[in-house]
Order: sequence, then structure tokens, then C-alpha cells
Amino acid sequence: MMRTRPLKVALLGCGVVGSEVARIMTTHADDLANRIGAPVELAGIAVRRPDRVRAGVPAELVTTDATALVKRGDIDVVIEVIGGIEPARGLITTAFEHGASVVSANKALVAADGAALHAAAEAHGADLYYEAAVAGAIPLVRPLRESLAGDKVNRVLGIVNGTTNFILDKMDSTGAGYSEALDEATALGYAEADPTADVEGFDAAAKAAILAGIAFHTRVTIDDVHREGLTEVTAADIASAKRMGCTVKLLAICERAADGASVTARVHPAMIPLTHPLASVREAYNAVFVESDAAGQLMFYGPGAGGAPTASAVLGDLVAVCRNKLAGATGPGESAYTRLPVSPMGEVVTRYHISLDVADKPGVLAQVATIFAEHGVSIDTVRQQGKDGEASLVVVTHRAADAALSSTVGALRELDTVRGVASIMRVEGE
Amino acid sequence: MMRTRPLKVALLGCGVVGSEVARIMTTHADDLANRIGAPVELAGIAVRRPDRVRAGVPAELVTTDATALVKRGDIDVVIEVIGGIEPARGLITTAFEHGASVVSANKALVAADGAALHAAAEAHGADLYYEAAVAGAIPLVRPLRESLAGDKVNRVLGIVNGTTNFILDKMDSTGAGYSEALDEATALGYAEADPTADVEGFDAAAKAAILAGIAFHTRVTIDDVHREGLTEVTAADIASAKRMGCTVKLLAICERAADGASVTARVHPAMIPLTHPLASVREAYNAVFVESDAAGQLMFYGPGAGGAPTASAVLGDLVAVCRNKLAGATGPGESAYTRLPVSPMGEVVTRYHISLDVADKPGVLAQVATIFAEHGVSIDTVRQQGKDGEASLVVVTHRAADAALSSTVGALRELDTVRGVASIMRVEGE
Repeated sequence: MMRTRPLKVALLGCGVVGSEVARIMTTHADDLANRIGAPVELAGIAVRRPDRVRAGVPAELVTTDATALVKRGDIDVVIEVIGGIEPARGLITTAFEHGASVVSANKALVAADGAALHAAAEAHGADLYYEAAVAGAIPLVRPLRESLAGDKVNRVLGIVNGTTNFILDKMDSTGAGYSEALDEATALGYAEADPTADVEGFDAAAKAAILAGIAFHTRVTIDDVHREGLTEVTAADIASAKRMGCTVKLLAICERAADGASVTARVHPAMIPLTHPLASVREAYNAVFVESDAAGQLMFYGPGAGGAPTASAVLGDLVAVCRNKLAGATGPGESAYTRLPVSPMGEVVTRYHISLDVADKPGVLAQVATIFAEHGVSIDTVRQQGKDGEASLVVVTHRAADAALSSTVGALRELDTVRGVASIMRVEGE
Repeated sequence: MMRTRPLKVALLGCGVVGSEVARIMTTHADDLANRIGAPVELAGIAVRRPDRVRAGVPAELVTTDATALVKRGDIDVVIEVIGGIEPARGLITTAFEHGASVVSANKALVAADGAALHAAAEAHGADLYYEAAVAGAIPLVRPLRESLAGDKVNRVLGIVNGTTNFILDKMDSTGAGYSEALDEATALGYAEADPTADVEGFDAAAKAAILAGIAFHTRVTIDDVHREGLTEVTAADIASAKRMGCTVKLLAICERAADGASVTARVHPAMIPLTHPLASVREAYNAVFVESDAAGQLMFYGPGAGGAPTASAVLGDLVAVCRNKLAGATGPGESAYTRLPVSPMGEVVTRYHISLDVADKPGVLAQVATIFAEHGVSIDTVRQQGKDGEASLVVVTHRAADAALSSTVGALRELDTVRGVASIMRVEGE
């Protein structure tokens, strides 16, 4: 049975994602109505620069006064696709105060201030949904929060940034260096003019914070996430990875400690075996691998960005939030009952792949091995290669605390026979 | 805020899945309570043979009278993991009549009679959830029904039966024939003593029916699904696929016609390119590839069967259904507003890979090519191989209606120069 009075939707932001949302709401109005049980009406579109509104966006709905739109009093759902902290945060809070539920694609805001936003939603009996904030169109927030609600998630391992995956995939398939691959990504529109947020891992760190919070029923903010970008990954690193039967990916890794009493969240480049399902994720695709007690290993794969894919996630949330409105209910809110501490990077247990340039003389390997032993780090394999009086030593360790691995590397740098540490990379996914 | 009066759950069936459900409900009671907002209590477990109940299942809850348990009047949620049509159907209907919502893992029942079950649930204001019915632990029903509710799904392509994927993976990796690979699957517990439901595609067809219905917002029953098993796939077929850069998978394929006015659903072995994400799904894993207008290409991967993975899906549904109960609401029910006709297999557009044994004399290729042309089927590639006066001809077609391809093969069999049709296989995922 269809309700005839439409639900009113305010759209904040009308860039790449917002204009797709407006387009689909118009062209697929009948389908949306059937799936919700009531028609939805786009009641207003707030933009900063009305002269830049794309073709096909209904001009009569456009306003520059986002606050007035949100305060109108008849808005059922606010869709926020502005991004960034302010004015998005203020507008979302105002929306809740005026009885609207909110669908957001804003990873930075949710990662920085999710707890306060959830509290505001709950205080006003409203919904806050943000499937689009993590890995674009790939359903992740809903599967983690709902499908796995009866399971215990222990680990989330994801490629959650398409720009950096494109760059690493190019480096892997063509042998190109980082700068060359970045140039190609920029030329093809996969990287922005200022690629900092992607290549330094800020974007992935925001997503890691959101994923860790939902997966472990705790609170993790972007400040809790250890972050290393991929700007220092070299063609030599990629070649080393290949020799080990691995590839290099920028991974977001969220883990529950073995004793269950703490969690960690980190973003950094890492080698993963070619046999791992994440290794075959090419180009700008994203994928998230989830390990849980009962379900075992799951993977979710798809486009992690782009106007249409992100709009798909926004509209899936819109349908859910509208259904909740009609039922007079709200969906699952923040679930942070465990409040587990987030351990620092030093406590993460992982493996290192270390390339050293060393003097090519007897006793060097023994010296190096002694340093590892002194720091309690066990060596898995060593490969030694001589060239013109110099030699290189590639050491892969067994699992150890990151702090121990890091201080081992520090001590190696002090050795006279070690000319330099050519690269250090963690090995994951084994 | 936690409600203290527990929600009461009746468990019907306590085999591999049911005993895992009972175990997790006991060991993870606190987590479930926190996620639901109220404690859940296992109020009774109906089994056929109480002497066979596994260790760890609370004996005092076991009963052989499932009907009396469901009719008790204080049951909030019934979990049905018996399988098969009856008595499961009668018990689920009785559960709705007594005010309970239902979580089921029963693909056969949902695929045969989903519409009536949904109607019964709706009539009594109850929920019917069955994430576990399709591909075990992999979240599929919820992503298709909720995450993609604002999108238009055009195609679902899935490996939804672990037994047959294990058999085909063994044939591919070891060169074994079908019987040998089946024996290994049986020995390792991947295939049942009577493997008919798996190897003849009945299990996959039930899942295809459920997926098609949810993806296209229409009604598809198992009788609408074209079904071919994998018993006739030979080591030679696998070798042929390899030469084409493909592998063979038993696929469940649900498609919306190009004009949007009808749908098709089918299960059969097919060659897919090694570059397709489904090609790398090994052993007994399942994966489902979804193509939609806005989201593009998504894939969901994980264990498709087994006690613990299926229990994970059941418990995720249990949490959702319990939350709905507390909110006095119900989740999304059947969405079949499009009521699209299901076209027969003959109208499916696909490609064929055909191996012919032919006489090794001039003019044979011309004869064969004429037959294809007469049936309006365009040839993509032909490969000819001579051996001892005989020759083999491998033809790969362009896309054509299955009926045209099928009648082409019929006409080829009539040719004197065609000694036999060694194999026919569809090519998908390109």
C-alpha cells in the first residue's frame, strides 16, 4: 500500500555525487517510491556556486542558503554530500534538531566526529546513515553492522582508496616508478591536482577509523589510526615483492588483539601474497576482506569512488531511512558498547621485509643476525646478493611487535657494515 | 538502554547449523544482547531425534514437538534450520499465526514458495528473513534488498554452490576427470553421499530463483530457472577452456532483458575468462558478481556453506529481527512490484563454445560455416586440428539467442561429415 504524501528530501551539495543523486531521484522516482512505500520529492538543493550547477539538475530547486533549507521544517531526510568538517557538521546537527534523518557520504566528518553525530541523531530520534563514506558503492557499513551483527569480527583488511590502488597497480604491471604512475593517474582523472589526501593515506585512514568502529563495536577516530602513505614505495620494492610471490597494496588494517582487550587501526603500504584475494584487485577498484569467528573469510569488491557508484550507496541509504521514517522507527545506531582501547602502532604484531645495502665482506650476515636476535626478532628468510664490492641483504622476519621491528632497523642503521636501509615494508595477509 | 525482559527464540532443527546457532547464542549472549538492546533467550530446540543432539546443546531445552514449541505463545522469533518443504513450511506459517517473526536458512522452501511465505508474514505483521538461504555467510540478500535499493540491478552472476566449485577447481588444477574429482570432494566431506542436489544444479537453481526475485523486484520460483548440472563436464572441456584463457564454473545467472520487460534465470556450467573476478574463486568458496546501473560491478565472496558460516548469517538476521520487534516495526518485506515475466532459456542471449569431431577432408569447414550462417549465428573463431584422418573443429560463436545456437547444433549433428559433437559449453562473463 503506497502512501501518497511524499517524503521530502533536501540535498546539500551538487557536485559529482550530488548531481548523480538528483538525476537518479528524478529518473527512477517510480522505483524509489515502490521500494520505499511512498514517493520521495527532492525539495531543495543547496549549492555554493549556483552558476556551476550541472545540466539536468532542476534549477528551480537550487538555493545557496543551506541552513534555511535544512530549517524549513518539512524536510524528512537531508542528504549531505558536501564533504569536509564545516559547514557539513553544523548542517547535519541542525537537520537532526529539525526532525530530519541524515544520509551522508562524508568520511572525514564521520571519522572525526562520528560519536557526537550519532548521539545527536539518537537524541532527536533520527537516523544517521553513511554507507557511501566507506568504499563508495561497496556495501560495507550495512554488512558489518547488520549481516555480521551475530558474529565476532577479528580483522578487516582493505583496499579502500582507488587512487593509490591505481598507482600501485600501474607500478606493478608496467615497472613504472611512483611519480610516473602518479602522473598517469592524474592524467586519467584518478588522482586530484593535489593528491595529498590519497597518497599520504588520509582518505584511507578516515575509512579505517569508520570500519574499525563498526567492526569492533567501539570508538575509533582518525587520530587513532597509524598512517603511512605510498610516496616512498619504489619500483625496486615492487620488484622485491614479485620475487617473494607478492604484490604491494596500500592497506587499511583493523585488528582485534588476540586477547580481545584492545584494537588497532593502521594504513600503510604492505606486501601481500599473490594468492590473497586482495592481490587481484586491479586499477581503481576497492575491496575489503573481513575475517570473523563464524563466517570465516568474506570479501566485498567494487568501485570505491565516482559519482554514480557513490550515488548508488547514498540512495540505498535514502530508501532505508525513508522506510524507517514511515515505520516510525530508526535503524541501528552507533554500537560502541565495547569501548576498547586503541593500541599504538608499536604493539601491532606484523612481519617486516627489509632491504639493506651492506659491505660485501665476511661476517656481515652474522652481525646483522645478531642485531635481530638482540631485539627478539626472529628471521624467516635472508637473501644475499653481491655486486661490485657492495652487497644487498633482504631479510624477511617472522611476526613480532612493530616496536621491536622498528628498533631492530634503528640498530641496523648504526652498524658500520650497513651502508643504508634501502626499504622496509610490512608483509600482511598470510 | 537495555530492556531486561528477554526476547524468546525457538530453534527448529539442531544439525550442523542449528547446533552452531545454539552454541553462539550461549557463548555470545552478552554481545547479542548489546547489539539487540535486549537479552535473547533460547526457549526451546525442536529436533527429530533427541538421541542425536550434539554435545554442548542444552538438553533441557530439547523437544520433539516442534508444533507445540511454535504454538507456545511467548515465542518472539522462530529460527528454522530444518530444510526441505514440510514440515518447515507448516511450522513457519504457524509461527507467523502466533506472532513470531521467522529467520530461515531454507533455500528450497523460499525458492518454491517465497511469495506465500512473505504474504503470511505481512498479514501477521511479522518479519521473514533468510540471508542464510543464499551463499551461506556471504551477505547477499541484505545488500541486494537494502544497499542496492536505490539502484537498478541488471545482472547477477554467481558461484553459489561450494561442492561443484570444489569439483571444478580440482578438475582445473589437477586435470582430473569429473568422477575422480567428485570422489575427492566426497572423501573430504564437500559432497554428500547422494550429491544429486549439488551436481545436478538443484541447489544453485533455488538460490538463483531467490537472487533473481530480490535483484529485479519480481517473482521467480525454482521452476522458472533453466538448470543444467556439471556431470557432463569433461577434462577435455577444462583443457579447451584453458586454451581460450578461460576456466569452467557452474554459474547461476540472472539477467534483466535489454528492454527491461522480462528477466531470465539459469544455472549451467560455463567458461569464463581468467581475468574475471569469479575465475579466481577456488575450492568450496562462493562468490556473487552483481552489475547495476549506478554501482557498476560489485562482488561478494566467502564461504557458501558449513555450520559456522551459515550460523553467522542466521544470527545476523536474528539481531535484525529482534531489533525490529523492539521497535515495533518490520523490516523490508517482499518487493515484487515489477512482476516481470521470466523468459525461457531459448531467449537468453549468450555465446557457445562447440567442439566437433569431423571428417578430415576438404569442404568440411565450409559446410559447418554454412549451417551457422543459415541459423543466423555469427562465428567468432574457429580452430581446426587434424589427427589420423579425423579432425576436430572448435567453434566459438558471437552472441546469439540460445534457441538459435541450440538449433545450429542440432543441424550440425545431421551433417554426414560431423562424426560427433564432443562438447558444447556457454561462454559468459565477458
